[in-house]
Amino acid sequence: MERIPILKLGPFLLVSIQVDMHDQMALALQEELTGRIVTDSARGVLIDISSLDIVDSFIGRMLSNIAGMARVLDAETVVVGMQPSVAITLVELGLSLPGIRTALNIDRGMALLNASRPVEE
Amino acid sequence: MERIPILKLGPFLLVSIQVDMHDQMALALQEELTGRIVTDSARGVLIDISSLDIVDSFIGRMLSNIAGMARVLDAETVVVGMQPSVAITLVELGLSLPGIRTALNIDRGMALLNASRPVEE
Repeated sequence: MERIPILKLGPFLLVSIQVDMHDQMALALQEELTGRIVTDSARGVLIDISSLDIVDSFIGRMLSNIAGMARVLDAETVVVGMQPSVAITLVELGLSLPGIRTALNIDRGMALLNASRPVEE
Repeated sequence: MERIPILKLGPFLLVSIQVDMHDQMALALQEELTGRIVTDSARGVLIDISSLDIVDSFIGRMLSNIAGMARVLDAETVVVGMQPSVAITLVELGLSLPGIRTALNIDRGMALLNASRPVEE
């Protein structure tokens, strides 16, 4: 059960982080997600963090890494569902989540992904 | 972190079950989900169980309960992402998930929900 599922959502992939991440799990997620971006030809990745009460530098770095890997695979990453308290803590800690775009919820995240890259097919 | 997030996906709600459920958690999920169906005017509920290696009678009953509650609130429930091994075990155990519709993945689940109730607005 120690696996974070990656859900296909049209041309995008959705990852909902619900559990405390540790190193091994973050590596496994990165590996599986990059694989899925390629096999599913995903144009974007939505990462839902609405369950997270805390986003520390470890999670922040993991999100940045995923966004960077997705970018070189030609997919954009949007982090959605951040709790207000997390936003407060992030700024207080001086963590700005560089290279990561955020949206209030999945619908807005999908709209952002659709807007940033009009359908070419 | 012991909370299962409920994600809004257009006119539907998405619940991704990733952790071992226990009584308390199932009750909390039912309560929150029924509340969200009302506040978000959701037309359907998608329950992703792709992380579950085992669906026993407890989970089966919980899914049936959720589907029943959603139905009286005028929302349909589709369970998506069932692993092949779970399907095998369910049939071997004689559990048929009464009253629950299933789909291979979220995209097909959304198509099923859209087809069963054409947009009225």
